[in-house]
Amino acid sequence: MDTTKIDSLDRLTNEFSKLPGVGKKTAGRYAYYIVTGSLAQAQGFAEAILEAKEKVKFCSNCGNFADAEVCPICKQRGEQTICVVKEPKDVMAIEKAHTYNGSYHVLHGTINPLANVAPKDIKIAELIARVSKGQTKEVILATSPDVEGEATAMYIASLVKPYGVKVTRIAQGLAAGTQLEFADEVTLTRALRDRIQL
Amino acid sequence: MDTTKIDSLDRLTNEFSKLPGVGKKTAGRYAYYIVTGSLAQAQGFAEAILEAKEKVKFCSNCGNFADAEVCPICKQRGEQTICVVKEPKDVMAIEKAHTYNGSYHVLHGTINPLANVAPKDIKIAELIARVSKGQTKEVILATSPDVEGEATAMYIASLVKPYGVKVTRIAQGLAAGTQLEFADEVTLTRALRDRIQL
Repeated sequence: MDTTKIDSLDRLTNEFSKLPGVGKKTAGRYAYYIVTGSLAQAQGFAEAILEAKEKVKFCSNCGNFADAEVCPICKQRGEQTICVVKEPKDVMAIEKAHTYNGSYHVLHGTINPLANVAPKDIKIAELIARVSKGQTKEVILATSPDVEGEATAMYIASLVKPYGVKVTRIAQGLAAGTQLEFADEVTLTRALRDRIQL
Repeated sequence: MDTTKIDSLDRLTNEFSKLPGVGKKTAGRYAYYIVTGSLAQAQGFAEAILEAKEKVKFCSNCGNFADAEVCPICKQRGEQTICVVKEPKDVMAIEKAHTYNGSYHVLHGTINPLANVAPKDIKIAELIARVSKGQTKEVILATSPDVEGEATAMYIASLVKPYGVKVTRIAQGLAAGTQLEFADEVTLTRALRDRIQL
């Protein structure tokens, strides 16, 4: 007989362990937090989950988080410039920099054959549909400069170029505040290759 | 105007960030998992939280998790030997070793002046009440060998000894499978001090 098994606790631990990057031990700690906390806390948590799932939608145009059919950014900024990113949090990161005034397109993933993510699994077709309307002047590919991000950017570039749209890739080089001596070879190579005239 | 703020998403992120060891970025990733998952997943998660909060109780005798008034361990094993631990997961750890046949007492914390945890904030009075019934022969202090665990063990020892009960502390020394050369000074000192005759 297992003297320490409690079904409802196991179920909650199991739910927590489905979260990204959470293992059995961490999930157990989260579950312990819930059962030792107040009833109001647990109810607030459960309600927040249901409310977010119910109210948070995705913009039918760009795929970013939205609480309406179309997000505020798409409503205000039009289709002239579209910045393509992997996830909604990338939109937040760029918006925080207060430097970009165009629209976005959120792919919700990058092409990754090892994880069985094919081009059809991310929102590339939706991007092409937007570009094909003829209002777009430039598509900025702002996926991360890792293997999947690079491959996705190259793939999208090949699909967008035939529409006569300017396709650009975010610059790669040394990050602000870092030391040159600690930069990796790939970053240094790109920083030198893409040097700009002053 | 903040173009990326969505109240219900912020609320869920905030709830996740209350979990132990979870910061704003990790909480945001968890919230993203919820809102991009299926409705059934979100509902299952919310239900698991409420069910665990409702059904998981604490044994009125030992303080361990229980789905009834008294846990199965207390019902079966009596009060002769009581092993005192910090948290329910410590009970699970010891039970997994299949080596201990006595009961437990879960303190739900250790004395920690820096975090404002005083002796009255953890279940020490409940332990003394059990011991004072006169059925207990031995109290094993199995709090962790860190500053708080040691202080708590010493404090409890001073309270339990007057009842004429044998008070023991779990052994400290080298962990199985570790290399002696990597052991810290305190562990080595204790391993030598508490050496046993073969």
